[in-house]
Amino acid sequence: MDHSREIELEGHIIDSGIMTRVFDRVMDMGGDFEIITFEVGKKKRDPSYARLQIRADSEEQLQSITSELHRYGARLIDLDNVRLMPAEADRVVPKGFYSTTNHPTSVRYRDEWIPVEHIEMDCTIVVDEVTGRAFCTPLSRLKKGDSVVIGEEGVRVVYPERPRETGMFEFMHGQVSSERPSATIVRKIAKELLKVKAAGLKVGLVGGPAIVHTGAGDALATLIREGYIDILFSGNALATHDIEYNLFGTSLGMNLKTGELITGGHKHHIYAISEVMRAGSIAAAVEKHVITGGIMYECVKAGIPYILAGSIRDDGPLPDVITDTVEAQDRMREHLEDCGMVLMIGTLLHSVAVGNCLPSYVKTICVDINPASVTKLMDRGTTQAIGVVSDAGTFIPALLAALSQNING
Amino acid sequence: MDHSREIELEGHIIDSGIMTRVFDRVMDMGGDFEIITFEVGKKKRDPSYARLQIRADSEEQLQSITSELHRYGARLIDLDNVRLMPAEADRVVPKGFYSTTNHPTSVRYRDEWIPVEHIEMDCTIVVDEVTGRAFCTPLSRLKKGDSVVIGEEGVRVVYPERPRETGMFEFMHGQVSSERPSATIVRKIAKELLKVKAAGLKVGLVGGPAIVHTGAGDALATLIREGYIDILFSGNALATHDIEYNLFGTSLGMNLKTGELITGGHKHHIYAISEVMRAGSIAAAVEKHVITGGIMYECVKAGIPYILAGSIRDDGPLPDVITDTVEAQDRMREHLEDCGMVLMIGTLLHSVAVGNCLPSYVKTICVDINPASVTKLMDRGTTQAIGVVSDAGTFIPALLAALSQNING
Amino acid sequence: MDHSREIELEGHIIDSGIMTRVFDRVMDMGGDFEIITFEVGKKKRDPSYARLQIRADSEEQLQSITSELHRYGARLIDLDNVRLMPAEADRVVPKGFYSTTNHPTSVRYRDEWIPVEHIEMDCTIVVDEVTGRAFCTPLSRLKKGDSVVIGEEGVRVVYPERPRETGMFEFMHGQVSSERPSATIVRKIAKELLKVKAAGLKVGLVGGPAIVHTGAGDALATLIREGYIDILFSGNALATHDIEYNLFGTSLGMNLKTGELITGGHKHHIYAISEVMRAGSIAAAVEKHVITGGIMYECVKAGIPYILAGSIRDDGPLPDVITDTVEAQDRMREHLEDCGMVLMIGTLLHSVAVGNCLPSYVKTICVDINPASVTKLMDRGTTQAIGVVSDAGTFIPALLAALSQNING
Amino acid sequence: MDHSREIELEGHIIDSGIMTRVFDRVMDMGGDFEIITFEVGKKKRDPSYARLQIRADSEEQLQSITSELHRYGARLIDLDNVRLMPAEADRVVPKGFYSTTNHPTSVRYRDEWIPVEHIEMDCTIVVDEVTGRAFCTPLSRLKKGDSVVIGEEGVRVVYPERPRETGMFEFMHGQVSSERPSATIVRKIAKELLKVKAAGLKVGLVGGPAIVHTGAGDALATLIREGYIDILFSGNALATHDIEYNLFGTSLGMNLKTGELITGGHKHHIYAISEVMRAGSIAAAVEKHVITGGIMYECVKAGIPYILAGSIRDDGPLPDVITDTVEAQDRMREHLEDCGMVLMIGTLLHSVAVGNCLPSYVKTICVDINPASVTKLMDRGTTQAIGVVSDAGTFIPALLAALSQNING
Repeated sequence: MDHSREIELEGHIIDSGIMTRVFDRVMDMGGDFEIITFEVGKKKRDPSYARLQIRADSEEQLQSITSELHRYGARLIDLDNVRLMPAEADRVVPKGFYSTTNHPTSVRYRDEWIPVEHIEMDCTIVVDEVTGRAFCTPLSRLKKGDSVVIGEEGVRVVYPERPRETGMFEFMHGQVSSERPSATIVRKIAKELLKVKAAGLKVGLVGGPAIVHTGAGDALATLIREGYIDILFSGNALATHDIEYNLFGTSLGMNLKTGELITGGHKHHIYAISEVMRAGSIAAAVEKHVITGGIMYECVKAGIPYILAGSIRDDGPLPDVITDTVEAQDRMREHLEDCGMVLMIGTLLHSVAVGNCLPSYVKTICVDINPASVTKLMDRGTTQAIGVVSDAGTFIPALLAALSQNING
Repeated sequence: MDHSREIELEGHIIDSGIMTRVFDRVMDMGGDFEIITFEVGKKKRDPSYARLQIRADSEEQLQSITSELHRYGARLIDLDNVRLMPAEADRVVPKGFYSTTNHPTSVRYRDEWIPVEHIEMDCTIVVDEVTGRAFCTPLSRLKKGDSVVIGEEGVRVVYPERPRETGMFEFMHGQVSSERPSATIVRKIAKELLKVKAAGLKVGLVGGPAIVHTGAGDALATLIREGYIDILFSGNALATHDIEYNLFGTSLGMNLKTGELITGGHKHHIYAISEVMRAGSIAAAVEKHVITGGIMYECVKAGIPYILAGSIRDDGPLPDVITDTVEAQDRMREHLEDCGMVLMIGTLLHSVAVGNCLPSYVKTICVDINPASVTKLMDRGTTQAIGVVSDAGTFIPALLAALSQNING
Repeated sequence: MDHSREIELEGHIIDSGIMTRVFDRVMDMGGDFEIITFEVGKKKRDPSYARLQIRADSEEQLQSITSELHRYGARLIDLDNVRLMPAEADRVVPKGFYSTTNHPTSVRYRDEWIPVEHIEMDCTIVVDEVTGRAFCTPLSRLKKGDSVVIGEEGVRVVYPERPRETGMFEFMHGQVSSERPSATIVRKIAKELLKVKAAGLKVGLVGGPAIVHTGAGDALATLIREGYIDILFSGNALATHDIEYNLFGTSLGMNLKTGELITGGHKHHIYAISEVMRAGSIAAAVEKHVITGGIMYECVKAGIPYILAGSIRDDGPLPDVITDTVEAQDRMREHLEDCGMVLMIGTLLHSVAVGNCLPSYVKTICVDINPASVTKLMDRGTTQAIGVVSDAGTFIPALLAALSQNING
Repeated sequence: MDHSREIELEGHIIDSGIMTRVFDRVMDMGGDFEIITFEVGKKKRDPSYARLQIRADSEEQLQSITSELHRYGARLIDLDNVRLMPAEADRVVPKGFYSTTNHPTSVRYRDEWIPVEHIEMDCTIVVDEVTGRAFCTPLSRLKKGDSVVIGEEGVRVVYPERPRETGMFEFMHGQVSSERPSATIVRKIAKELLKVKAAGLKVGLVGGPAIVHTGAGDALATLIREGYIDILFSGNALATHDIEYNLFGTSLGMNLKTGELITGGHKHHIYAISEVMRAGSIAAAVEKHVITGGIMYECVKAGIPYILAGSIRDDGPLPDVITDTVEAQDRMREHLEDCGMVLMIGTLLHSVAVGNCLPSYVKTICVDINPASVTKLMDRGTTQAIGVVSDAGTFIPALLAALSQNING
């Protein structure tokens, strides 16, 4: 193995599992390593420092390995500025483009480290050579001529470290089991949510129609009215069935108070959409007293923004639905800024979509009756997600109760 | 088709779907039919009566078809006494034995119709020729020389009819969806449970350890203390983790109040079993104040019988566990008498086992986070089961609240 | 109960379960009935005829009941032409609009029965008063001034009847169990597919990216090349990962031959999209030999249309993706014409979307590893769907083998 | 924090994640640490060595922490012999007993390290003071007077290390996703199975009745006949339905070739059991040509032992079923000796039971259509299990094909 290169790692690299991952990847990829220096932080709060020589059989293999290690925060020793290349055409990446992780990232440009703004996974980094700012740029927004970062040189990633204290979120980390004490989990989420709000960050809710079908619509409406939720991400179905419930007491034609299918109930959601269409928008329908309560009503009243993204499953859809999916993604991205926590309840589609746009440090909780939904979210890269296998119909009311209790005592 | 035979059907045979099933089976099995008489009940409460000629290509096929129709309550026109044949050996059935459904059944013996006692599915019927009584007899209890019923002649089955009124259970019948209004379902179950108790029937609970793991142990203990449950069917795991929780505050080593894994917690369940072993039994451990609360404690205090059936997964097991599975079945059967409702929560193994021994008229509710569990229960023949896809940890406390509310107003 | 009205039903109304459903609904809804005439078809192929008087406490209740019965094919005795009312505005329904079922439907217009074209569920019916044709019209296409059918008068629905012979599809009808003989099911589906093709009808495939991830992409490509599939409904993910697999041998960065995650593999799907972008379209990329094999390649080569509908989860997306969801639905609808069978594999989103637009007589098979997906599809109204709980990675190759075998012997 | 103690760790402790786990636990449990020495293995094959001082606020907390670290292979510096205490009574553990992990373990007894035989999780260790041997002893086998190991002193655990090469099993480690290339996984399992056989170790199969229901019985029978399986762990259901299939071509009454429910089929499994009862045993029924093929037949013919453990769900059961669950466990344990690989297919109950008795170095593959089954198996401590979410009906035939291909070239 005569191709080698040195890298360095710094921080809580042992207890955050970073060293383990680095060694694993080198061995998985058929490379070898030698430790040049390893200064272990003696005490809990001391950072460690490691310098490794990575060896491979070819320059190409070496390149591959260091490229992977980079994603765990490893840095090449020789400092260089970032390499840039212009995009040949709209939505066409230059060969060798740097593909982002969802961890905080900075690039060395003109001998200075500048942060990459709006970081999310699987995007390019574009440097604005005029302002000297760097932006995480999804393929859909890449324009001809944009200066795109090539390779890992001059790029630094901060891999998430284990918090020094026992936090709440750690206790369930990376696990998806239905055999957890539900009430305890709800209390912990409530406490964490209040901490996020106290820190001045926003709480986002991503929700599917199961919230209404399982009868938790009233509880979610109350959460919104009482100021716990700052932004709602959803689709046509949740809004339609919420409005159907407000207008007719049913959801997909089922009377939520009696559990019975109402005659003519199959028309209710079409009527609901049609009435909003007549008013012009959900907000207009609230203003005209057509809609008098529920999730969407509370959003309008409280001025909480809602992003309703279209899907090919939609009936209607409501006039507020953004039917263009690329535009809907862009709107979603704008509103994810400053979110400190995102609760995802009963929707795989929207959860993966929002998860794709979140940095890894945003607290993400995914509640679904189906454990496979949580697994899929993590498989798609939202590895920080905590899965709670539970029933929206009982979970949201329990969360509301836990929040009230925390506030009042 | 020159082989034919006449059968008759009576009751609410149209709206209970019986006629549909009869026609379906004949066609599925390649037979033909002609309607001789069809007197339709003109009004809602009037029974109907149908007389059909069934035709087939061979005597054997005809036999097959009428044998199937029999299971839906069809009767051969020519009245005959039941045919009996002695069992050659213990647990050996005579050829052509009649295999039971789980519907109420009677046999014509010495020109009189006598009910088959303790009906359950997939058993033989044994007639005691001395007392003139007929018993549903599982293979494991069949003794050499028992008079076993052969064929369908002289056997009558009463297929379940649709109730004339809209009951509660009908609204969810035969469906397993997670998209139901949880709180409404809980209220309906609470109301039905109180109706069953008011009718002087027993309510059985079949439970798995998930009840304790999800933190619903306290709520179940309260249900027992307040007299809502008359009999507990479970295994070593529920009892062990309930006692572990009482002794150490943990369940499988997890502190249920904090959700944290306790150091040394992996030993707790072994200690719990060992302490009961030292006392001699659960009841003795309660008496000696070793166990001071929880599900098993409340059972002992209230004199509620509990059947703990052994499984090969068991640690220990507790001295109260019936390790012989055939014996455990027999004990289970004794206690199912007079049950008007059975709640099955978080255990597929025990639910199917109890379901196998239940007549079809016992109200059966299966609560599981996994929809496949409910499907399997129905696939195994407990077709009357109503599936509720929910989380034991939030469901049981909600049921307790709904019951208290109903009682208090 | 002094409000009454007569209805009639005709056909195989007993064995198709129609009479049962009619009686059930009347009783569920608190009504009463009296049978005026009931002429039972004596033999298997004879239709039956029933005339019932329905009674209710109020005109409104009576209206509700007959409106429901209508959905099972019940007709009011007094023949009337359909009532029409103009839509006030685009996408605004008139009060009392008739909401479609997915069964064949006709309307009585100017004393003649005319069929409703392109029937699908939850739509309006618009009559073109110039040409005298009637169209099933989704809300999104309803234009101001369209003549919309109001109420059930003059509308006839043909509820699906049980086939007189034992077909293949009946054996699994309405059930979703994983405990079925997989090879047998595959053989039956293969046989049915060939029958549909032989009848000159189209076979549609609705597929998710799991087809590629589980390694079944090659088998699907072969199915397309050999002419078994006439139309592909999918999204950005299937096409992207199929092309990624063709360009790099990976799917979401995993080498499908070794199961290993390839270094830099997380970039592959972005490269794949970008290369297609550079070429201009999938077809152009095939033409320029950028794409040299796989599912999309075979579609282009064979001239099989593909509808790639956008979703907010999409990276890119590919230039061929229809990002506007309403437009995507319309394109989907056009291509569903003449489909005799639709296979849905590994995608809940697209399956429900396509299911929503299918008449109830199209054979629909939904293959998913997750039984909840099939349940949800049926809950959304595609009740004719047959659920197969299996693994795309083993199912599609097995289907291909069964088809080859059938063709060759 | 004035209570402290030193521990040491040795081996591939960084890349096996051991150091990470040790630091994590100390912090989780509110302790502190200081690194005294850390000698990092410079190269891939060099072991590392770490000596840490652990600090806590109380002696009890310190004890708790070191007790946990012990489970990851940490050793106290001061060497001591193991402490022993006699069991007071049968199945009663002494206070402070050492509870086993499923990793290789040895105890220091009379100044020598002796291995603990038959290691499995959650048991006691009993030292035979006469022979100087140490045995892992489940509670059910603990006898009054047995010398039970107390505390962690003098006990050493070898935590599993990451293999230096990329093996096959590593690629899926600890993950349960349905989105994997099925054919590739099957090939890898086949290769690994052949490696295990070549090493002279046994391959065990744990199977549920779904194997027969999904039509994979023939393939499993072939696997046994061709010598790939050395021991079968199952219950009454698999054996009964296998024999039912041999006698009648049905499984739970469904014809596996046509997928149709056979008339009278509900009796078949009772007949099957009864016929075996008449013969005396499965082996006798094979000898008397009552059973002429299938899984059990091949076991008898090839002399492959089968352990059929009873469960309360059982009909019958067959005379070969061990109805006492504690006895069944003991029999299972005897036969797990020398197993190098265990395949678990379609049964949660038996998989957890066998998993409980396996050392962590036995290759364990769990195939189930339900991802929750695999999760539960891991939650119960069988963390080495690799989950494959697939359909038994297509998986087993594919495995058979892959094995034949490997053998033949």
